[in-house]
Amino acid sequence: MAPRWKGKAAEAKALAEPMSTIVSRLQSSLIESNSQGLLSGCSVLLAAHPEQTELFNHACFGRPIISAEKDKQWFQLSLEEALYLCSVMKCIKVVGENKCEKNDEELWRYMTSKKVGFPFLFKAYSHLRMKNWVVRAGTQYGVDFVAYRHHPALVHSEYAVLVLSDEDDNKNTRLKAWSDFHCTLRLCGSVAKTLLILHISKNGDGAIFPSSLENYCVEERIVTRWNPEQSRENQTIVQKESCKS
Amino acid sequence: MAPRWKGKAAEAKALAEPMSTIVSRLQSSLIESNSQGLLSGCSVLLAAHPEQTELFNHACFGRPIISAEKDKQWFQLSLEEALYLCSVMKCIKVVGENKCEKNDEELWRYMTSKKVGFPFLFKAYSHLRMKNWVVRAGTQYGVDFVAYRHHPALVHSEYAVLVLSDEDDNKNTRLKAWSDFHCTLRLCGSVAKTLLILHISKNGDGAIFPSSLENYCVEERIVTRWNPEQSRENQTIVQKESCKS
Repeated sequence: MAPRWKGKAAEAKALAEPMSTIVSRLQSSLIESNSQGLLSGCSVLLAAHPEQTELFNHACFGRPIISAEKDKQWFQLSLEEALYLCSVMKCIKVVGENKCEKNDEELWRYMTSKKVGFPFLFKAYSHLRMKNWVVRAGTQYGVDFVAYRHHPALVHSEYAVLVLSDEDDNKNTRLKAWSDFHCTLRLCGSVAKTLLILHISKNGDGAIFPSSLENYCVEERIVTRWNPEQSRENQTIVQKESCKS
Repeated sequence: MAPRWKGKAAEAKALAEPMSTIVSRLQSSLIESNSQGLLSGCSVLLAAHPEQTELFNHACFGRPIISAEKDKQWFQLSLEEALYLCSVMKCIKVVGENKCEKNDEELWRYMTSKKVGFPFLFKAYSHLRMKNWVVRAGTQYGVDFVAYRHHPALVHSEYAVLVLSDEDDNKNTRLKAWSDFHCTLRLCGSVAKTLLILHISKNGDGAIFPSSLENYCVEERIVTRWNPEQSRENQTIVQKESCKS
C-alpha cells in the first residue's frame, strides 16, 4: 500500500524536511537546554520553551498539556518516548519524585515494573524510531502502535503495529486464535493500514540496560490478505492490462 | 441498537412468518422424509427435495452445494447445525462412511475430536437457535458466530458472538489483552453489530451427550462503548431535550 499523503503539498513538505533532521534538531535543543523530565506514574513530564515546543510537535514526541503558564509548555511523554530520548538519543535526564536523577538502569527497572511487556514494547518503539518512523499509541485501533512515514498532519499512518514476544505475559495472547487474526486484519483493512507484526525474542541474559537491549532480536512481518486476482502469474496480468487498454 | 431491517416490507414479512414456524415446518418435513446426513470431514452432507430446499434456505441451515442433479439439492451443514438437527430437533439421522447410523454419543465424540472447543461452540449455537435466532459463522468478522433476528435476506445481523470458556484451549485466548478487546469492539461498531459474549462454564461431569449439555451454563454479556453523552442523569437529558424543542 502506497503512503497516503494528505495532499500534494504535504508530500512536498515532508520530502523537503526529513523526520531525521527534525529529530536531530530537537535533540540538539534539548541537550543545549539541559532538559529534565519528571517521572510521574506512567508518564514523564517535561517543560519546553517556545522554540522547543515547536520541535516537540514537529518531531511528534509526547502530548502538550494545557496549562496557564505562558513562557513554557509542558509535555507528557509516554514511558517509551521518555526512555528513548533519555537512553538512546541521550538528550534529556529524568528525575524521580525526590528530584534525584535516575540512571539508565534505575529507569529501566521502574518502567518495567509499571507496564506489562515494557521491554518488548520499548524495543519495538526504538526499532521503528531509529528508522525514522513516527510512532504513536495504537490503542484506538486495538494494536500497540501506529507508524507514520512523517508527521501525522502530513500523512496517514501506514502500519498498525502489534508487538509479540516469546515471553509468557499478557501481551502474548494476541493472534493465537484465528478469530483474533481475522478481526485484526479486517480492522486494519478498514482503516487502510497494513498490519506489521514485530516478533521480539530475547537472546542471552545478564547484561544490564541499555546494553541489554542488543539481546532483543526483532523480526518484522507484514500480514495482508491474499487476493487471488492480484496474485496470478505475470502473463495473466499483462493480458488483463492489454485488454483494458 | 434497534434491528436493521432491509426495508419496511422485509420487517412485515418477518413478522408475518416467525422463524420458529419456519424451523418447525423444516423439522416436520425432515422427519417425514426420514432424512439422513452423511458425515464428511468437518461437515455433514444432506440431500433435500425441492420443497425441503426452500425450507432449508428459509430456516437458514447449511449452504446449498451446486451440482448437476436436478431432482435433489445437496446441503452442506456445519457440525453445529448437523448436531442441532440431529440431537436437539431430532429430525435427521447422521451416518458415517460405512453407512452406519451414528448415535448421539458417537457423533459427539467425533465432532469434539474434529473441532477445538466444539462443546462450547455447540452449546452457544443451540442456546441461540433455541431462542429462534438465526446463527451463522462469524469468521469474516473475527468472531465465532453472528446472530440474526430473522432471515439474513430480511435483516442485518444484530450480534457478533464470541464464545468464551473456562477451559484452557485455543478458543480461550480471546479478549485477554486490552488491544484485542479494543480491536473487536471497534470492528463490531464499524459493522453495526453488538458484541455478545457467551461465557460458558461446565459444571459437573460424567453425564453423556446429550444430557451432558445441561451441565454447560451460559452467561450472556453484551459489551458496548460507554458514551458519556448518553449516560448522563435523567434530568440533564430532559433539559437537553427541552432546549431542542
